[in-house]
Amino acid sequence: MTPKQLQHISDVADSVEQLITRGDLAEVSATLTPLPVPDVVELIGRLSIADGAIIYRLLTKARSLEVFEALPPGMQGDIVQALQDAEITGLFAEMDPDDRAWLLDELPASVAPRLLQGLSAHEREMTAAILGYPKNAIGRRMSPEVIITHPNLTVGETMSRVRENLRRAETIYTLPVTDSGRRVVGVVSLRDVLAADDDAQISGFMSEAHIATADEDAETAARRATDLGLLALPIVDSEQRLVGVLTIDDAARILKQEESEDAARQGGVEPLRRSYLSTPIRRLVRSRVVWLLVLAVGATLTVQVLGAFEATLAQMTVLALFVPLLIGTGGNTGNQAATTVTRSLALGEVTPRDVRKVLSREIRVGFSLGLLLGLLGFAIAGLVFDWHIGVVIGLTLLAVCTLAASIGGIMPLAARAIKVDPAVFSNPFITTFVDATGLIIYFLIAKAVLGI
Amino acid sequence: MTPKQLQHISDVADSVEQLITRGDLAEVSATLTPLPVPDVVELIGRLSIADGAIIYRLLTKARSLEVFEALPPGMQGDIVQALQDAEITGLFAEMDPDDRAWLLDELPASVAPRLLQGLSAHEREMTAAILGYPKNAIGRRMSPEVIITHPNLTVGETMSRVRENLRRAETIYTLPVTDSGRRVVGVVSLRDVLAADDDAQISGFMSEAHIATADEDAETAARRATDLGLLALPIVDSEQRLVGVLTIDDAARILKQEESEDAARQGGVEPLRRSYLSTPIRRLVRSRVVWLLVLAVGATLTVQVLGAFEATLAQMTVLALFVPLLIGTGGNTGNQAATTVTRSLALGEVTPRDVRKVLSREIRVGFSLGLLLGLLGFAIAGLVFDWHIGVVIGLTLLAVCTLAASIGGIMPLAARAIKVDPAVFSNPFITTFVDATGLIIYFLIAKAVLGI
Repeated sequence: MTPKQLQHISDVADSVEQLITRGDLAEVSATLTPLPVPDVVELIGRLSIADGAIIYRLLTKARSLEVFEALPPGMQGDIVQALQDAEITGLFAEMDPDDRAWLLDELPASVAPRLLQGLSAHEREMTAAILGYPKNAIGRRMSPEVIITHPNLTVGETMSRVRENLRRAETIYTLPVTDSGRRVVGVVSLRDVLAADDDAQISGFMSEAHIATADEDAETAARRATDLGLLALPIVDSEQRLVGVLTIDDAARILKQEESEDAARQGGVEPLRRSYLSTPIRRLVRSRVVWLLVLAVGATLTVQVLGAFEATLAQMTVLALFVPLLIGTGGNTGNQAATTVTRSLALGEVTPRDVRKVLSREIRVGFSLGLLLGLLGFAIAGLVFDWHIGVVIGLTLLAVCTLAASIGGIMPLAARAIKVDPAVFSNPFITTFVDATGLIIYFLIAKAVLGI
Repeated sequence: MTPKQLQHISDVADSVEQLITRGDLAEVSATLTPLPVPDVVELIGRLSIADGAIIYRLLTKARSLEVFEALPPGMQGDIVQALQDAEITGLFAEMDPDDRAWLLDELPASVAPRLLQGLSAHEREMTAAILGYPKNAIGRRMSPEVIITHPNLTVGETMSRVRENLRRAETIYTLPVTDSGRRVVGVVSLRDVLAADDDAQISGFMSEAHIATADEDAETAARRATDLGLLALPIVDSEQRLVGVLTIDDAARILKQEESEDAARQGGVEPLRRSYLSTPIRRLVRSRVVWLLVLAVGATLTVQVLGAFEATLAQMTVLALFVPLLIGTGGNTGNQAATTVTRSLALGEVTPRDVRKVLSREIRVGFSLGLLLGLLGFAIAGLVFDWHIGVVIGLTLLAVCTLAASIGGIMPLAARAIKVDPAVFSNPFITTFVDATGLIIYFLIAKAVLGI
């Protein structure tokens, strides 16, 4: 390089150091963009390892791969180690998630596993922020220690690889088959390997691989792994290059956690971090109070609605007797629909795109249920009180059930569509909503039928 | 045997044949009890294979083991085959579960796996009735094809066993270690085997085995297998003899099904047998209508309660305005408690024996929540309406929250104690219950405070 270039780089180095101390990473990456790869390598050489690691991480994926390969091996190790350092990961963890999303491109498949290797599951969680995979992405839960084989390797060569990595690898029972570019081209089970002759080629009996991309939602990937009964699911980056595996026991762990959260949210509780009996009372209170308040505030709607019809109530107190029955039935119908649809969403049986199908089904289901309950309500209320009341109760039940089932059916889809956990939006929320609307319907029908 | 004995046996044979045609298996087993083993062997020889299989299955475990060993190998095979026969399994399947429980002792560990071997998962389900394990027991979901090794076998000998059974075995990655009596004394992973020298003895590095007994609840066993991340959990009979394994993918499948059922029941829906979109409308209706009716009938309680206080209502219509808010809050508080406890039950964190602990915790949680909401209710209602109303609302919220949380907390435990799925008893059920009791509390407080 010419002295002039070197001068330029040392200037950049100074300003970068200042920007980093100010924590303005966005500006740092902007400064890097125009620099050609050799200059970046030179720059990293002139900075402290910590600063070097930071600017390295801010490169785009393509460039970070080139730079990494251009760095001397010793330096490569230093960078990787620095990226595991609490201070640096902390720096990236503190970033606004959106900034992180556009500043941190995913790490190259040759670097990401090196970064995670040898880290405990906990340490990996800590390092996750730096990986460039979104929160809840399977890339943050995968294991990097994986034994790879190639299509043109023999069974014997593969077995010796297995023997060499017996202790290190997360699993030895499923071996991803990758090409020279680390792209996954298939998978073989140790069972198949043991069944084949020593000089047989892997390409001869490898089977097609089910894979997940590192930025895919962890629950979806875990669900697929367990549904297919895969002992290990290869995880690849956006270029189909292997970055790790999800073992079936980790998958089961992820699903257990998700199920617990769904169960909790459906009951309007924040998931507990620990077992029920070991959770302090105030924690239990905190896990419930927010939802309870939200719902109570929502319920004040019903007070206002009833207030609006107070005159009608004063005139015919009997109408008040059916309020809990009517809104209760509405709530139950809504919860039934929400529960079914929420679960189907979790299992991937329906997606927000099916909203029309779901709506038309729930309208029909709600109508059928409403018809049945309506006739019963009509008969009983008619006999016990009088037939006008019977008509009011019957019609209200029909209307409320149809409404509740529809709302309950589409609410979870709406939640998923706006990226909210469907379980949160479901049961207690729907109850409150249906209560208010149900009451309005009730009194409008009452006024019409009873002519008050 | 003397001619006299033989005569006696042929008489028994005749009567047994008649009893079987009459389908009176209880009487058959009664006839067998006094017969010594050699006579039973002789008897089986004189009967058709089908009848022989039936009386064989009616023997106690100890005797059926002796008899099986006394039978000529050809006959052993015939009996096992006959026991897989649809007609015979049907015969046992039709039996009243209680009769089956006391007539069918579990099959010996040497016979049960033979009976299941080579059957598809579906066929195994069919054969399950004949196994002598209770419904929902893990013994009915396990796989019998397992590779066993012994403590004094070498690694080399074990590996050749693995190679021989590569295709047949359900899993080759976890090998139960059993003694000569088929009792599980440990477990080795294929990984450990591959890591050891060919002439090393299994006893040198086998690890302690986690096991489940065949009559254990399937969900509990599956939960343990996935929590411990075991690729295969050995299943033993009441004498600790190996009868099969539960593989982790089967465990995950069992849990998925259980989770779906819990989720459904918590929403007051009967679990669907197939995916939501592929379920016919009338099926959806059927899965919801029963619960909806049960709850509606329960809700008529609220009508009666309000009816009892109709005079009070007529006097102060304003009281009616708060009914949905109060019972809604009560329902939500109850559901929150029920959801948390139901989940903890499913995860085995709490058992019905913890009822006192749970109750005392939920009373405190409910009271704290009630105190908070009560103060808010008092302030708001007091400002908007008048302070007497405020006092009524505040006190009612305090009482209802405490009551609801307690009921919601212990209801799932009660359900489990009487062997009902806790999820069934929970949310919608509790809501209905809390609605009625909450209203009584409300009006009693109102009458006391307002002096009406």
